[in-house]
Amino acid sequence: MADIITPRTLKGFRDLLPATASERERIIAAAIAVFRRYGYAPIDTPALEYAEILAGKAGTETDKQMYRFEDAGGRDVALRFDLTVPLARFVAQHIETLGTPFKRYHIDKVWRGENPQRGRFREFVQCDFDTIGTESPLVDIETVLLVSDLLVAIGMDRFTIRVNDRRILNAVLTRVGLHDQATEVLRSLDKLAKVGQDWVADDLVAGVGATAAQVDAVLGLARQHGSGIDVLEGMGALTGGDEAADAALAMLAALVESAGALGAAPGRIVVDGSIARGLDYYTGIVFETYLDDHPEIGACCSGGRYDHLASRYTRRRLPGVGGSLGVDRLLAVIGDREGGGAATAPVLLTRFAAGDGVDLVTLAAGIRDAGIGVEVYPDADRIGSQLRYADRHGHRVVLIVGPDERAADSVTVKTMATGDERTVATSEVVAEIVRVLNADPQAVS
Amino acid sequence: MADIITPRTLKGFRDLLPATASERERIIAAAIAVFRRYGYAPIDTPALEYAEILAGKAGTETDKQMYRFEDAGGRDVALRFDLTVPLARFVAQHIETLGTPFKRYHIDKVWRGENPQRGRFREFVQCDFDTIGTESPLVDIETVLLVSDLLVAIGMDRFTIRVNDRRILNAVLTRVGLHDQATEVLRSLDKLAKVGQDWVADDLVAGVGATAAQVDAVLGLARQHGSGIDVLEGMGALTGGDEAADAALAMLAALVESAGALGAAPGRIVVDGSIARGLDYYTGIVFETYLDDHPEIGACCSGGRYDHLASRYTRRRLPGVGGSLGVDRLLAVIGDREGGGAATAPVLLTRFAAGDGVDLVTLAAGIRDAGIGVEVYPDADRIGSQLRYADRHGHRVVLIVGPDERAADSVTVKTMATGDERTVATSEVVAEIVRVLNADPQAVS
Repeated sequence: MADIITPRTLKGFRDLLPATASERERIIAAAIAVFRRYGYAPIDTPALEYAEILAGKAGTETDKQMYRFEDAGGRDVALRFDLTVPLARFVAQHIETLGTPFKRYHIDKVWRGENPQRGRFREFVQCDFDTIGTESPLVDIETVLLVSDLLVAIGMDRFTIRVNDRRILNAVLTRVGLHDQATEVLRSLDKLAKVGQDWVADDLVAGVGATAAQVDAVLGLARQHGSGIDVLEGMGALTGGDEAADAALAMLAALVESAGALGAAPGRIVVDGSIARGLDYYTGIVFETYLDDHPEIGACCSGGRYDHLASRYTRRRLPGVGGSLGVDRLLAVIGDREGGGAATAPVLLTRFAAGDGVDLVTLAAGIRDAGIGVEVYPDADRIGSQLRYADRHGHRVVLIVGPDERAADSVTVKTMATGDERTVATSEVVAEIVRVLNADPQAVS
Repeated sequence: MADIITPRTLKGFRDLLPATASERERIIAAAIAVFRRYGYAPIDTPALEYAEILAGKAGTETDKQMYRFEDAGGRDVALRFDLTVPLARFVAQHIETLGTPFKRYHIDKVWRGENPQRGRFREFVQCDFDTIGTESPLVDIETVLLVSDLLVAIGMDRFTIRVNDRRILNAVLTRVGLHDQATEVLRSLDKLAKVGQDWVADDLVAGVGATAAQVDAVLGLARQHGSGIDVLEGMGALTGGDEAADAALAMLAALVESAGALGAAPGRIVVDGSIARGLDYYTGIVFETYLDDHPEIGACCSGGRYDHLASRYTRRRLPGVGGSLGVDRLLAVIGDREGGGAATAPVLLTRFAAGDGVDLVTLAAGIRDAGIGVEVYPDADRIGSQLRYADRHGHRVVLIVGPDERAADSVTVKTMATGDERTVATSEVVAEIVRVLNADPQAVS
């Protein structure tokens, strides 16, 4: 007999068992439905690209984490580490065919060879949406409203979308003479929520050489926070009539007004002067979304506006705005219920005797035709075993066709949650299943 | 200004533009719905595995095609080339947790460095479904019925599922003394549809050393073909009472009976003595599905039963049965309508004047709340341009809110298919859109 190879995955990689994979599939399907409702369309790009396409863009850290190798044809290739660089390459290559505005979503795996720790994996799913080729503030507003719809669709109730605009930050920095150190200041400010005001103040003095007055101005803006027009007035006082900042404030006012008109839960969309986003390329609106009950997972949906998406691949100016949903972070919160409860069909049809066959298949098919999922238990194991299988997998209804039922052309319908059993005529079985499923608070799968 | 990097994909790889990506997404969503209705649950495995896990299983051809490299940690790793080997590794690793029967589907990309030709790509999507841990003929039957449901759900009407069983083939080969050359005979027979009877006859004589009587027996079985019980009787006459073959014939009879009882279109499920499947590991039912109008793409859904899925990774015997849907082959048939017609929301809300803003956002949100997708055109371009955008993308309804509409709190609803326009009160706009979409044969997106 051949040697057995130990079955195992690579360090930092993982399998998803059915319950977790099902939950991820549900999150992604909900996201797709929301994206499509706003007119975003899907694209796909290869997992593997020329390394020169991917390398260098996002700094040395990402370069070091890249899975890069020479393929059999001698090409220098790499697995993508995000979906933003491939999007930039994609639009540079296809924008003449696609035209603008171009609204796309893209949901697929990316790979980063980081040290796996704190629930981080080397393979994870990104879920990005962007609108390319327009600077319209309407799209900024709709992007934030979409994020709210997205979280609700996934089943989240208590979350906060913190919104700011780089134009406001830039105006304040220019006014107090910190414009040339903007990158460093924003990187420091980006840590505020984690490290606190004192640390940021020290960092601005020590790292950027800021004066006390400059630190006060930056932290003064960072303290602006709320859903009311007063917050925008407070920010306006700090930006001193800068034209770009005024446009940003008008956009944020319209966003707050829209959210109010649409009846968004109070406090879900908050203007927050401390939101900076660390990355260089943002130029307008920036946002981060936090689950109120799970601050430990960090932001679960972030993004913003950028002026020039694809400058490495085309001289055409392609501004855009978009965001990224942290599917795996949400999945960690929603729960890894691995090893059970993964039933995708709510009904299990048991098999009483080895001789039972075609009639079970046709019975199951008839129930499926009514739109209800049914799994047929394949073997005539003891009914107790089959019931334990249903219990472990989370089937909600079990059907039994024993000799008595067979003689009377009937089916016993067992409700797993209560243990209740009712024997009904075979012709009534769909109606009885519907009754049981509707009586139960869970939705029909 | 930095040098521009030419945006391009690797040889054999491709981008999917929105229309094609949307179509693939639709096929996959339809497949998932069918899998779940039968009680299959999703799993996920890493794209990257230890090379020793993947190498060697499916022969040297696949080994040569593997993207294999050393990662930064010095590990010998490779991108998976199918989803079957990862499934084998997965069940060997997790079956104690999962229990049997275990029904899983898995839809994701795989990579093969083959010479890209005739529409073949080095990256493609596989869509597999399997039931592990049972030898029940009910599962064989349901697997074939599922394939039929799958093709119908995807929108296919004219297709044929050709079904056979290795136990029948083996019985005939044993009876005529060809059992020791079974692998070569089946590999030759597998080419029958492409090369014809004469070639197979010559090949059996020259390659296997078959006698004229042996060739007659093999081709006699291969000629058995049809949906009636008479075909099974014809096969039974050739297998000469072999016990395993009789079990196979009983399973096929039950399959034909079930298909009939369920009202499957005549000729969709056909018993065909020539279906052999080239791969060694099949031991029971085997099937291949062809689109009647597109023989050129070959089989679009194939599979069968195997005795021992995971023998490389565990000594536990894990029989199973399953199949694989050729998503990219179907996509090629359904049509690459790239560059247009990709609208995911049926309604485009135009923007008449630069001053319009919050009211458009709230109007759109109200329509979305009614379950209808709306894309807001972001900029106040000329209405003619916006209508061309709608035409190119395939929006079915365009909404216009000009000064007259605004004064009267109304919206003009334009039906793109006919050019008809009706101006209705804003409070009536959802009802009017529903009316237009229902009048149009296409479904509401």
